[in-house]
Amino acid sequence: MSTSPNFRYVTLADQIQENIAGGMFRPGDRLPSLRKLHTRLGLSITTVHQAYIELEKRGQVEAREKSGFYVRPLSAAPRALPQHAKTRSGPSSVNINSLAQTIISELEREDILQLGAAVYSKELMPLKQLTRIMKSIPSATLGDFMSNYETCAGNQSLRRAIAGRMAGQAGSITHDDIITTNGCLEAVSLCLRAVAGPGDAILVESPVFHCFLQLIEDLNMRVIEIPACPEKGIFPQDFKKSVDSGQVAACLLNSNFHNPLGYRMSRENKRAILEMALKQDIPIIEDDIYGDLYFTGPRPSTYKSMDPKGMVLYCSSVSKTLAPGLRTGWVIPGKFRERVIRSKTATTVSNAGINQEVTARFITTGAYDRHLRTLRNHLKNQASALSMALHNHFPRDIRMTFPKGGMFLWVVLDPDINTMDIFHKAHEKNISILPGLICSSSNRYKNCLRLNCGIKWGPKMEQGIACLGDLVKQAYKGQKKT
Amino acid sequence: MSTSPNFRYVTLADQIQENIAGGMFRPGDRLPSLRKLHTRLGLSITTVHQAYIELEKRGQVEAREKSGFYVRPLSAAPRALPQHAKTRSGPSSVNINSLAQTIISELEREDILQLGAAVYSKELMPLKQLTRIMKSIPSATLGDFMSNYETCAGNQSLRRAIAGRMAGQAGSITHDDIITTNGCLEAVSLCLRAVAGPGDAILVESPVFHCFLQLIEDLNMRVIEIPACPEKGIFPQDFKKSVDSGQVAACLLNSNFHNPLGYRMSRENKRAILEMALKQDIPIIEDDIYGDLYFTGPRPSTYKSMDPKGMVLYCSSVSKTLAPGLRTGWVIPGKFRERVIRSKTATTVSNAGINQEVTARFITTGAYDRHLRTLRNHLKNQASALSMALHNHFPRDIRMTFPKGGMFLWVVLDPDINTMDIFHKAHEKNISILPGLICSSSNRYKNCLRLNCGIKWGPKMEQGIACLGDLVKQAYKGQKKT
Repeated sequence: MSTSPNFRYVTLADQIQENIAGGMFRPGDRLPSLRKLHTRLGLSITTVHQAYIELEKRGQVEAREKSGFYVRPLSAAPRALPQHAKTRSGPSSVNINSLAQTIISELEREDILQLGAAVYSKELMPLKQLTRIMKSIPSATLGDFMSNYETCAGNQSLRRAIAGRMAGQAGSITHDDIITTNGCLEAVSLCLRAVAGPGDAILVESPVFHCFLQLIEDLNMRVIEIPACPEKGIFPQDFKKSVDSGQVAACLLNSNFHNPLGYRMSRENKRAILEMALKQDIPIIEDDIYGDLYFTGPRPSTYKSMDPKGMVLYCSSVSKTLAPGLRTGWVIPGKFRERVIRSKTATTVSNAGINQEVTARFITTGAYDRHLRTLRNHLKNQASALSMALHNHFPRDIRMTFPKGGMFLWVVLDPDINTMDIFHKAHEKNISILPGLICSSSNRYKNCLRLNCGIKWGPKMEQGIACLGDLVKQAYKGQKKT
Repeated sequence: MSTSPNFRYVTLADQIQENIAGGMFRPGDRLPSLRKLHTRLGLSITTVHQAYIELEKRGQVEAREKSGFYVRPLSAAPRALPQHAKTRSGPSSVNINSLAQTIISELEREDILQLGAAVYSKELMPLKQLTRIMKSIPSATLGDFMSNYETCAGNQSLRRAIAGRMAGQAGSITHDDIITTNGCLEAVSLCLRAVAGPGDAILVESPVFHCFLQLIEDLNMRVIEIPACPEKGIFPQDFKKSVDSGQVAACLLNSNFHNPLGYRMSRENKRAILEMALKQDIPIIEDDIYGDLYFTGPRPSTYKSMDPKGMVLYCSSVSKTLAPGLRTGWVIPGKFRERVIRSKTATTVSNAGINQEVTARFITTGAYDRHLRTLRNHLKNQASALSMALHNHFPRDIRMTFPKGGMFLWVVLDPDINTMDIFHKAHEKNISILPGLICSSSNRYKNCLRLNCGIKWGPKMEQGIACLGDLVKQAYKGQKKT
């Protein structure tokens, strides 16, 4: 399965990469010659050659002069995945805001290598097309957008475009089911306020996106963290124990290319979890902001698509897939529509109409889907390259994830290392990382860090990872001395 | 004092209008001839003539052929102001959301005469200039705005422009003290979350802007309403009794051209109230969204300008003064800056950068202040015309305000009339009004209504008011029968 079905060489490269990962080809192995694969698979020599070049770009193989292509020694070295913590706990209050704020304000600096952020490179964004669309909007139409309070549900063209793209993927919805928002986080905020009140406990996957914790803290709610398996997400049996306790008011889940772990939960596990939630009348707020960023198809399923009762509130935006400055997000709130509209009316009222119109036009022309195909390939390759660089520059015994999509790698260091120290030292060298400490309300993950693979790979990234690797190695040494 | 110091005829018209209001000229009186005023005041005949034409437009005088100008019989008829309710009450929970939502969703219809809304006519907005500015932004700059999460505090040019305009009016502030928001209501929402928590009581002026009540309800806070005098606002002694009860967590005040009453509180009363609040460490959230819309100068004072301790959180936007679709508001949160930034980071993150840039450029060139001078004159004249039409078409014994600025008239009908009935009947005739019921959490003001004078005066408005007057008269008759 490939993200670009038109390109045979990518399909082939994907297959070979899977074989390397699966152990069929071992580090140092010579790969089949161009001619052999040409005969065996019925593909042109050029296609096979392009596939090897692609794998070389991804850091998986290396060309040796006059000898052929070899599996890179490190690329297939079995690197341990992070372990799945099993500790569970009841609801707890959240208190990460001041720490998170420091970190976030440091992420805002422009001169920094943003390994701690959740952004993708500007050079990969279709900015020329977007600005061309904006420039092409007639002055009278621009005037209309400026002069009106848009209807609270949002720009109708955009809602139609989203409903069209999501057909199948979110059940049978129309534009009337959608409310636009100022980014995905506003959508999540409106949903939390619609389904829960102060003191209520919100179930999340742990580690958890730190902004969810900030939001829950800000709304005076409490959190129940279910430890997630780095590959499979949360398990239905763990979910069951939590909801059976009777303390869960609502769930806030990010099960497709989870931030920070990168897993894609299986359709079966999602269905099992949804059924338990429905049985107990517990709403699920689904953050699917990374759902379109799969490294191999098909597009993953959503809770929303399996929900016959309107108990799933689906949230997304184009901030990670198109351009964050458009501030264009949306929510499909199911049966909670009226309460979401109410909260929006009482805070932001409506959002910038012009940006919504630009986004709608970009989607409707098909440019968005074309852009996504390219972007997914870039992200996959950047994740490979980042993974490889970590192999090369970090201590040998680290554990790390390789994401199924999205834009994060999660790295687990020795339990005695505190990544806050590394955060501060990296910051002095103009590199940001996201320390694991802020991904939980209860002091877990302080030896972990999240890295962003949205940035275009190049010497600056390689050097940044090398520099970070040095800092981590120093921390390991310092720790052994004491 | 005039809003357009360049136009002598406006100054003269203002003076004569004040004299009419003060009783120097009585209804039916013949005004001094053009020649007499020319000699007496040293102004040209043309200027005096223009002043009389202006007063005719405002509905204050009428020209009688070959005889001169006369005070219109109704314009100076002493129309009773609404009474100042004296009842006070402790904190109460708010429960207006579902009613308010119905009303607001009906306001969204475009085919309706929006007497219930808080908007001004599109034809009075400088849309050509704004779209020209937007079109002139280079593509590369547009691309920058789209591609970045703007810093949470907001566009720096806009913050500098605001700080420049507000020099003196909000104490000594710089752009660093300002955070931009998605409209004024988001600013108020962030402030409430920064200074109070669930269950806390917020002191407001009563009647109160219904969106404040929705917001307070939405945040699970309670409200304490202090009845306001229709001319002078709330009195320091009433404020003192409330805060002395120890139940007030914060105040949310809209003391310049209050929505819905239109009063401008005196500097002295503001100072007295601020001092009491400071003494008890109670923050004041100041909504100054109408502050620039004074009908006669000077620009009214703000709590912010008198606050040495950073306890005032100042909120405003350009939605009522420029264009609501720009979604450009701001907050000057004083000592609560960190908490406001935190709440914004956890919800909308940042706002549409392009719109902020357009607003900044419009302010910086001086176009905004020029536009405001014109707009203030329009609003004043529209308020006069609306007031006159109410004299002509409504029952004789109504009470009503004449605002000092802003865009509302508040009308008080017979105590047994319920304006919700009139709301429904007017709605069938495609006219919206704001029923007084939603301007309080405790069933007050059900015989009141708020009318918007932001709409350009013309036959459609005259007919709308006539139609509304018929409905009100019918209600009076119906009530006498029963």
